[in-house]
Amino acid sequence: MTSLRRSPEKIRLPLGFSFSAVAAGIKVSGRPDLGLVEVWGRATSPAHAVRSRRVHTEGSSAAAIGATAAALFTKNRVVAAPVEVGRAALVSTGGRVRAVVVNSGNANCATGRAGIQACEGVCREAGKLFGVPAAEIFPSSTGIIGVRLPAEKIRAKLPELIAARSASQRGVLAFAHAIMTTDTRPKLASVRFRASSTEGSKEVTVLGIAKGAGMIHPQLATLLVYLFTDVGASARELQPLLREACDRSLNCMSIDGDTSTNDTVLLLASGASGAQARDIRTRKKLSAALTEVCQSLAEQIVSDGEGVQHVIRLFVEQARSREEALLVARTIAHSMLVKTAWAGADPNWGRILAAVGRCDVPVDPSRVQIYIGRQKVCRNGIACAFNERQAHRNLAQPVCDIRVQLGRGQHSVRFLTTDLTAEYVRINADYST
Amino acid sequence: MTSLRRSPEKIRLPLGFSFSAVAAGIKVSGRPDLGLVEVWGRATSPAHAVRSRRVHTEGSSAAAIGATAAALFTKNRVVAAPVEVGRAALVSTGGRVRAVVVNSGNANCATGRAGIQACEGVCREAGKLFGVPAAEIFPSSTGIIGVRLPAEKIRAKLPELIAARSASQRGVLAFAHAIMTTDTRPKLASVRFRASSTEGSKEVTVLGIAKGAGMIHPQLATLLVYLFTDVGASARELQPLLREACDRSLNCMSIDGDTSTNDTVLLLASGASGAQARDIRTRKKLSAALTEVCQSLAEQIVSDGEGVQHVIRLFVEQARSREEALLVARTIAHSMLVKTAWAGADPNWGRILAAVGRCDVPVDPSRVQIYIGRQKVCRNGIACAFNERQAHRNLAQPVCDIRVQLGRGQHSVRFLTTDLTAEYVRINADYST
Repeated sequence: MTSLRRSPEKIRLPLGFSFSAVAAGIKVSGRPDLGLVEVWGRATSPAHAVRSRRVHTEGSSAAAIGATAAALFTKNRVVAAPVEVGRAALVSTGGRVRAVVVNSGNANCATGRAGIQACEGVCREAGKLFGVPAAEIFPSSTGIIGVRLPAEKIRAKLPELIAARSASQRGVLAFAHAIMTTDTRPKLASVRFRASSTEGSKEVTVLGIAKGAGMIHPQLATLLVYLFTDVGASARELQPLLREACDRSLNCMSIDGDTSTNDTVLLLASGASGAQARDIRTRKKLSAALTEVCQSLAEQIVSDGEGVQHVIRLFVEQARSREEALLVARTIAHSMLVKTAWAGADPNWGRILAAVGRCDVPVDPSRVQIYIGRQKVCRNGIACAFNERQAHRNLAQPVCDIRVQLGRGQHSVRFLTTDLTAEYVRINADYST
Repeated sequence: MTSLRRSPEKIRLPLGFSFSAVAAGIKVSGRPDLGLVEVWGRATSPAHAVRSRRVHTEGSSAAAIGATAAALFTKNRVVAAPVEVGRAALVSTGGRVRAVVVNSGNANCATGRAGIQACEGVCREAGKLFGVPAAEIFPSSTGIIGVRLPAEKIRAKLPELIAARSASQRGVLAFAHAIMTTDTRPKLASVRFRASSTEGSKEVTVLGIAKGAGMIHPQLATLLVYLFTDVGASARELQPLLREACDRSLNCMSIDGDTSTNDTVLLLASGASGAQARDIRTRKKLSAALTEVCQSLAEQIVSDGEGVQHVIRLFVEQARSREEALLVARTIAHSMLVKTAWAGADPNWGRILAAVGRCDVPVDPSRVQIYIGRQKVCRNGIACAFNERQAHRNLAQPVCDIRVQLGRGQHSVRFLTTDLTAEYVRINADYST
């Protein structure tokens, strides 16, 4: 792969989901800031249909409407109200979601008991409108920390939001735009595959939608990422697939090393395609599709990072373990000196070596090799002759590969990161005031 | 203390030291880049006079000329040649130094065996000129990593450098300027105290000279700091005093979180005052003087940090241990989002809370209090009413106090750090190319 994958022109929609967005007046700009995903497929996993306590209403003919769900949340000890509420809801329903309600412009974090109540009020209101318990509404918020969520504005807009929903590209794009904060473009990826089983051949789609441009250093999750598929799967089947896909994508990227308080990755399976994840071949294909979608989203997030000029694909190789490779990658990726050198397309590999030297891995500097693009710039921990002009040209590209070999073992990691520019400073020095 | 201590107008010189500087052509700018400190006092500790193997020459009448020495070095695993050479020299001499030779403009790091040889060649040549073994010449380098040290330029300038030495303020200032890289001003501090013992009353002086403006996140030491005193002390007596002074000053500061490969703190004691550190009261006064000098240097370094507009004095309180308080302070001090908010004098305390939440200390957010200046801005982990205009005014000052209380214990730390500005990015995106 020589360039980063951008959002594909054609978004494929999995069956069973509708999308919409409105402007609720949370963002000062007046832009859309409230998004909805409704699940209208029937999750076919009997285990979870039984475990969830459903309310029967005129609209839902049976207990099966809604998706099975798996989720990962921020590892930050400071967690936003919607993370607390959403996590508890998934436990209480055994992993069942009828709708997702997301606002941007306000993180509803560090808002105390009132923040929890505001979030619960939105879920209760939406649940009432869909005829389901509040726990089947999954909430998310993103934006400034420590400011009261204007829940009354959200509640007032819910009927309009629900009326606008559609299972269309237009709906998906509206939703993807409404969850943006400092993002300059929406992030979407989709993959379609054919699941063949004894029950016949079915087409399965995986769609991912993400937002994130700053406070990006996921620890098991990243800001807001929603993954939708029409495969049928139990929450228990979904969780390991989600974790694996994230470990290979969203957990291997960083813009600024700051882990958000609101990080959430939610995977919903509607079952509407008729294909089942309990089939081992389908599960493998689903795993590959989820990983591909998450990797594409990770690339889109990093390349839209705040003030980013250059994306760096950092390959840390020859580590004793994957954790060790990750630690080295993160130390390099969070070094302000390394990141500013990248901003200047400066092949100053000494700063990379110094970052390797200060991390908690007992690296022997005399076994370290560093490459910029295809050129070796540091051999056995010391300078070697290289074409500096070429290295500068490599770093001046929108995407540049840097390879660091530790000479300690067989494990490696591919980590996506960015330069640190004056524009990043400008954006973040001018956010709340 | 309401403002940071600047370099005092009057620098007090300890007895027994001469200083000089010349331009050796290492810096492209042609500015002075080679500094010398010669010890001409007689260290009076018999233990070390015996342990050091001295060469008798015409200039030195006895084995006693030179200082006793203690030193701390970088914890980075990638260490520069002069750190390796200087550390080994102090071991071989039992802590004895006749002269210090420092170059700026080139770190002599990641330069392999050739770098070690270049450094040793400079020490050998200087030793020959002073009539002492090479091991009594303490070398330092600071500047770009990974570029061959032009040792021949240094060796050629040594006679001129030695001829220029003087025990004067002018000499001290010339030396302090010659070791600068991106520093905009020299960093000096001195303290004088009276040591009274059974042997009578003597005046003792402690002088500190430092350089450093970027790659500042010391781990037991910071860039180049030279401390001189005319007390008589053994190397064994000096080492704990040096460590204690550094722990309370240089180890509690960070500009960018990057630990240098060349960090060195060297303390030399000439014994020329006649006072002895073996006297417990003198040792206590010396400890206090060293700490005061190091704290002043730390403040000078941070306020001259690359692109720094605002210095933040960060008080992390109510931790279970000092280490825990330090970990929290460092996580806050290295958060790009927190630092950029400070650049905009933005009282966005949510980013501080989010940084506390992601560090490896099990902080309960609901027990966290945050103050900007004297105002509480976050009570029990959530927003509280405060005068935002006043908080903005506090942060817009050259120095602002921020207090974070963890509600876990009795330990605290005072940590000096800075904002992250577009100017920092400009400086560091344009260093080697």
